[in-house]
Amino acid sequence: MESAKLMWAKLPSVEEDGDGDGVSADEVGRIKKTDASSVESLDYEVIENYAYRLQQAKRGKLYAWYSVVVKWLFALATGIGTGLAAVFINIAVENFAGWKFSLTFSIIQKSYFAGFVVYMLINLALVFSSVYIITHFAPAAAGSGIPEIKGYLNGIDTHGILLFRTLVGKIFGSIGSVGGGLALGKEGPLVHTGACIASLLGQGGSTKYHLNSRWLQVLKSERDRRDLVTCGCAAGVAAAFRAPVGGVLFALEEVTSWWRSQLMWRVFFTSAIVAVVVRTAMGWCRSGKCGHFGSGGFIIWDVSDGQEDYSFEELFPMAIIGIIGGLLGALFNQLTLYITHWRRNYLHRRGNRVKIIEACIISVITSIISFGLPLFKKCTPCPDIDANSGIECPRAPGMYGNYVNFYCGNKNEYNDLATIFFNTQDDAIRNLFSAKTIHEFSAQSLLTFLVMFYTLAVVTFGTSVPAGQFVPGIMIGSTYGRLVGMFVVSFYRKLNIEEGTYALLGAASFLGGSMRMTVSLCVIMVEITNNLKFLPLIMLVLLISKAVGDAFNEGLYEEQARLRGIPLLESKPKYQMRNMTAREACGNQKVIYFHRVVKVGDVVSILRSNNHNGFPVIDHTRNGETLVIGLILRSHLLVLLQTKVDFQHSPLPSDVRGGSLPIRHNLNEFMKPVSSKGLSIDEIHLDSDDINMYIDLAPFLNPSPYVVPEDMSLTKVYNLFRQLGLRHLLVVPRASRVIGLVTRKDLLIEDSDDLASLELHSTSVRERHHGKRPVRQNMDGEQPLLDGLLV
Amino acid sequence: MESAKLMWAKLPSVEEDGDGDGVSADEVGRIKKTDASSVESLDYEVIENYAYRLQQAKRGKLYAWYSVVVKWLFALATGIGTGLAAVFINIAVENFAGWKFSLTFSIIQKSYFAGFVVYMLINLALVFSSVYIITHFAPAAAGSGIPEIKGYLNGIDTHGILLFRTLVGKIFGSIGSVGGGLALGKEGPLVHTGACIASLLGQGGSTKYHLNSRWLQVLKSERDRRDLVTCGCAAGVAAAFRAPVGGVLFALEEVTSWWRSQLMWRVFFTSAIVAVVVRTAMGWCRSGKCGHFGSGGFIIWDVSDGQEDYSFEELFPMAIIGIIGGLLGALFNQLTLYITHWRRNYLHRRGNRVKIIEACIISVITSIISFGLPLFKKCTPCPDIDANSGIECPRAPGMYGNYVNFYCGNKNEYNDLATIFFNTQDDAIRNLFSAKTIHEFSAQSLLTFLVMFYTLAVVTFGTSVPAGQFVPGIMIGSTYGRLVGMFVVSFYRKLNIEEGTYALLGAASFLGGSMRMTVSLCVIMVEITNNLKFLPLIMLVLLISKAVGDAFNEGLYEEQARLRGIPLLESKPKYQMRNMTAREACGNQKVIYFHRVVKVGDVVSILRSNNHNGFPVIDHTRNGETLVIGLILRSHLLVLLQTKVDFQHSPLPSDVRGGSLPIRHNLNEFMKPVSSKGLSIDEIHLDSDDINMYIDLAPFLNPSPYVVPEDMSLTKVYNLFRQLGLRHLLVVPRASRVIGLVTRKDLLIEDSDDLASLELHSTSVRERHHGKRPVRQNMDGEQPLLDGLLV
Repeated sequence: MESAKLMWAKLPSVEEDGDGDGVSADEVGRIKKTDASSVESLDYEVIENYAYRLQQAKRGKLYAWYSVVVKWLFALATGIGTGLAAVFINIAVENFAGWKFSLTFSIIQKSYFAGFVVYMLINLALVFSSVYIITHFAPAAAGSGIPEIKGYLNGIDTHGILLFRTLVGKIFGSIGSVGGGLALGKEGPLVHTGACIASLLGQGGSTKYHLNSRWLQVLKSERDRRDLVTCGCAAGVAAAFRAPVGGVLFALEEVTSWWRSQLMWRVFFTSAIVAVVVRTAMGWCRSGKCGHFGSGGFIIWDVSDGQEDYSFEELFPMAIIGIIGGLLGALFNQLTLYITHWRRNYLHRRGNRVKIIEACIISVITSIISFGLPLFKKCTPCPDIDANSGIECPRAPGMYGNYVNFYCGNKNEYNDLATIFFNTQDDAIRNLFSAKTIHEFSAQSLLTFLVMFYTLAVVTFGTSVPAGQFVPGIMIGSTYGRLVGMFVVSFYRKLNIEEGTYALLGAASFLGGSMRMTVSLCVIMVEITNNLKFLPLIMLVLLISKAVGDAFNEGLYEEQARLRGIPLLESKPKYQMRNMTAREACGNQKVIYFHRVVKVGDVVSILRSNNHNGFPVIDHTRNGETLVIGLILRSHLLVLLQTKVDFQHSPLPSDVRGGSLPIRHNLNEFMKPVSSKGLSIDEIHLDSDDINMYIDLAPFLNPSPYVVPEDMSLTKVYNLFRQLGLRHLLVVPRASRVIGLVTRKDLLIEDSDDLASLELHSTSVRERHHGKRPVRQNMDGEQPLLDGLLV
Repeated sequence: MESAKLMWAKLPSVEEDGDGDGVSADEVGRIKKTDASSVESLDYEVIENYAYRLQQAKRGKLYAWYSVVVKWLFALATGIGTGLAAVFINIAVENFAGWKFSLTFSIIQKSYFAGFVVYMLINLALVFSSVYIITHFAPAAAGSGIPEIKGYLNGIDTHGILLFRTLVGKIFGSIGSVGGGLALGKEGPLVHTGACIASLLGQGGSTKYHLNSRWLQVLKSERDRRDLVTCGCAAGVAAAFRAPVGGVLFALEEVTSWWRSQLMWRVFFTSAIVAVVVRTAMGWCRSGKCGHFGSGGFIIWDVSDGQEDYSFEELFPMAIIGIIGGLLGALFNQLTLYITHWRRNYLHRRGNRVKIIEACIISVITSIISFGLPLFKKCTPCPDIDANSGIECPRAPGMYGNYVNFYCGNKNEYNDLATIFFNTQDDAIRNLFSAKTIHEFSAQSLLTFLVMFYTLAVVTFGTSVPAGQFVPGIMIGSTYGRLVGMFVVSFYRKLNIEEGTYALLGAASFLGGSMRMTVSLCVIMVEITNNLKFLPLIMLVLLISKAVGDAFNEGLYEEQARLRGIPLLESKPKYQMRNMTAREACGNQKVIYFHRVVKVGDVVSILRSNNHNGFPVIDHTRNGETLVIGLILRSHLLVLLQTKVDFQHSPLPSDVRGGSLPIRHNLNEFMKPVSSKGLSIDEIHLDSDDINMYIDLAPFLNPSPYVVPEDMSLTKVYNLFRQLGLRHLLVVPRASRVIGLVTRKDLLIEDSDDLASLELHSTSVRERHHGKRPVRQNMDGEQPLLDGLLV
């Protein structure tokens, strides 16, 4: 037995990895042998590629700079793209809605029935366009997309979710569904839109539509692409709510399961770019170039002129709002879960026609309710309003503001139900949040609206149109919030209380009770209301509503993700895990592994026999011991089988056989385009000659996957898995000896900039071991192929 | 060889662990044996404590609830405590400063010389009180404390940093140093104050001063205490700047090296409590009960009435501000590093007297400059001011506002240098940020102030008083920012530009260039200026200044931490790590390890021979193989040596010897009080009888420390270390076989609430193995002692 040890090579590369299941370039399939002053030694084959690595080391620093610049440029492009998409959607929605309402208003001056028909037909047309796009062109664009994006960033790639057609479908679909007046929002879809834009940029365009460019394909690692999608999510929130900080925190809290502080700054940058783009566009629109956009437009429900202060007595009704929010939110999650389940299993199985009919029926019902209900409401006389306050009663039709005159006999009356029902959601929320409009709404109207809108929101959720739950949630919450506010105003007569403040808190409580977000939601609420004063109050109601909701079920996105079979890991390990070991989590299944050099036929039959995504690779040392040399991914095996160039006739490892191996793989071959189905074993055709050949897996495997001892507590395993964003973790036996102990101080290496010393170092290592056995330097550029691929 | 396997016990406990080096209760020293359908099997001793665990399982859920409630109550208490401390410091500082300035102003109406003497003496007295407290009572309270807190939360406990005396010293010291007009701020010390309060609460008071209570000692794990300190840091920032969200992000970005989303919400809660407390106190003070406090008071430099919009031409001067900020910030870090180094090595070695003299000299110099320089400045005639704007020129002495008349002959003149120099820093910044005061300051005055204040800030940094760098940084930055703003105003005449906006950006740029914080700083700037409009601009300058600064050196806190020998891990692994393996990080040192049962004399000699903090424990299986059974900490070994109760005469493991072992340890014995020096091997006295006895380490070790294979890339190791906040990591040989593969789906366990099934499960495991060998149930409560201790 020689005194040489197995050791994986370690030369510079661009990708600093270590988080994520990804492998850094220096780790992929470079096996190097060196003598070591170790007690024990293992005999192992050498794969060495010295010349290539030297070259890498030389260009390393420059290339690192280049790659940083590229990442920032992509973040910039993502921000600009998402900002523009948001502006486009908003302008389109506002114009459709504005045109719809002004047309209807002008018709109802003559005939309410004709007005209703026109209103209903316009809504129907818009919703039909949306559902048609989704069902026939981009099925993955239905719903909010946030559970799927969460899944993607957790490592689960749902088919179709980030394609170009999904992006297009999402944008045009949400224009139709939101413009058509359904009880849903455009904010969730915007997050998905941002993620799609980021993903398409990251992989250099859409291959299917030939919109790609080689020039753009510079993000070579899965991790970089995922990072960009994180930026895209933040950009989506930032664009949807004009809340850049909220976007960053949303990405941090809600979307990713792991996080690096380097990424944070890039995410923040993207959000800020979005803010600049949106702001510029709005400035441009202010001159009236964008039609109806600008009167309502982007969400900023400014409550800065609201309540100045709050007293301790108010904390009690606020706590009640929190409890109501938790209960209604949990109920919403549960109802939507049942309905979505039913839809998936019964209704939507019957094909696209059923989906279209369903959406159209819901559209008609929504139109009837929103137009019809206010007709039954008796009008209220206008209050005495200070002429200077800028509030008009009744307001002119088609204008933005409170106090709409709808089916009122008297000129000085307004219809409070129509003010919230027969309006765009943005304006309705603005009216509900509005201060200095005490008792604008009657309790009866608010209650009617709450029940009706809640029902509509539940029913609409899960139809085949792009649908966000933020704005409907805010609608529902602010309605009961204002209701509570009315009682508070009547009860504590002395205090300077605004009903609008309670509406705001109600909105926060419902979102908290349904989505269970905390910090990001808090910041988003502050940013969209442009008011820092209520921060502690928002936190209070969020805290309560989340706690109440958590007692019943999980958050909306988690429930939906579970329903769709997306395995999201919660932030907290389950209670039972404390009693389990890593070994138990693996189950009793026998581990399927590969030997280093394996027959092609065996690979095929193993891949056919199961659907595992990763396989350990095991090799024998010369003295017969086995050794785990790494992990290989199914997708990479499939690429190897498809390209066939690595097949060899000999069952010996390639480095033992000798001979120069040219660069046979393009890096992009190994990268599955995002959201595509990827290769399948059934698509690969091998003839009998191929089947009998061999393949050496060593250059293509991830040589150092994370490992845990078999008896480690599952809680610890869970945290390792989640904190590092892993996809595979090897469970191995307890070690027989300790080679060393790494402490914090061992990791504090002084920054010495000279690469020369590095080369020297690696040379000396090579020199040392040179004496022992000849080293082959003939595998030019083979191992580094998979740089950052193996995620 | 029996078909039984080593397996660590797994029963419910309160602490969910897994992150952190900490061990969950279910892991500490509970060795359980069970037969398993495994291929291989190892022979190992059994330690079983079934009855106890059953009891634990029963009270598990309830106790978990209790512990959650306790954690939130402690967070609440931390928030209230920090808020009150901040209010106290602010009221004291404002009153001292206000009284000082009004007295001086009333005297200079008669004699400027007498006024100067009084001004200087008051400053000297305040600074002397501060430096005296620090040198004679609380040496650890000097400086900002942030590097040390960062260190603590990274796992490095600097002596004295979180003691009660440090808290007291910090509070009173910073009142003296800030009130005394030195070029330093009270914000950094407030972060330290918050951390101290949290730490003291967490360990149930101060033992030394008998202010502790058993009742409070409920946070049993190091991790919980660290979490609370994180809350304290956030509370400090929230209190210092009235920026709750900024506090959360500061804790997230700057202070901790690892983060769990569960913690985030608690941190946020603490920050909100602080906001409520501060707000309530300020409301109470508004009626004039707090003397001079209220006129200046808590930082909110409101710029909401500033510039409304910005144009693209302005981006160029803003970028220049970013570059200046990066350069001046990096220079500041470098200069302070040199000066601190020199101070530590030469000046401060000479004892407390020198420290006191130094601080007093600096105080006198500061007084001379701030009083003297304005005297040489020619006064400026007051501008034409709209009577309605509320701006007075010249303002009445001792009042808050711009345009101070200082040594001016004419009644309608003001001294612009005195406006910023001869003022509290808060008011000076308010004046620099102020809008609608175009050309209030001459370029010459600003430049003079910049040079002088920069020099003072550099010289003052590192004296033995509590000192923050936020406010001085904002002073410096806003000065050159306003200078650039003046040029911009003159250059682009048409635009509606406010110099105050540029001052704000300058402040952000200097802090970015010096502290290199990004997101948190951005949010803090937005919150302290109460203006969301400039967010993208602040980000732009921060981005540039951080990039420029990073080209020269590290951030202020990192540089200072390195100087103090605190091994902080950066967020990004070093470039060279890509070329290194875990094995290389350990160095060539031989691993010092213990056997399971070890002679007391050997323990003593091993502990004496080195200063390692953790030791692997190795045991032999019956067939002679070695097996790594865990990691034991030096501190726990010392406790075992000191208490002596676990010494045994036989070299056999306790479970082999048999006999009932009573509960011999109180959990608190194993917990080192925070910031104390802890036990030392030299303090432990053992007689020769003791030396020859044995000790069984099994019940006290951490049975599953994280391990990495020897050839893993150091980048990966680094990320593992940092993401999980580890302190020790075992490097082991590459595994010989794979027991299983954990994937995401394996970790998705359905929540089944019934503990019965758990008990059943563990019973069944026991049952199965019952048949094989007798189980001892006689070690009541020994193993669970160290619940959550081994961090």
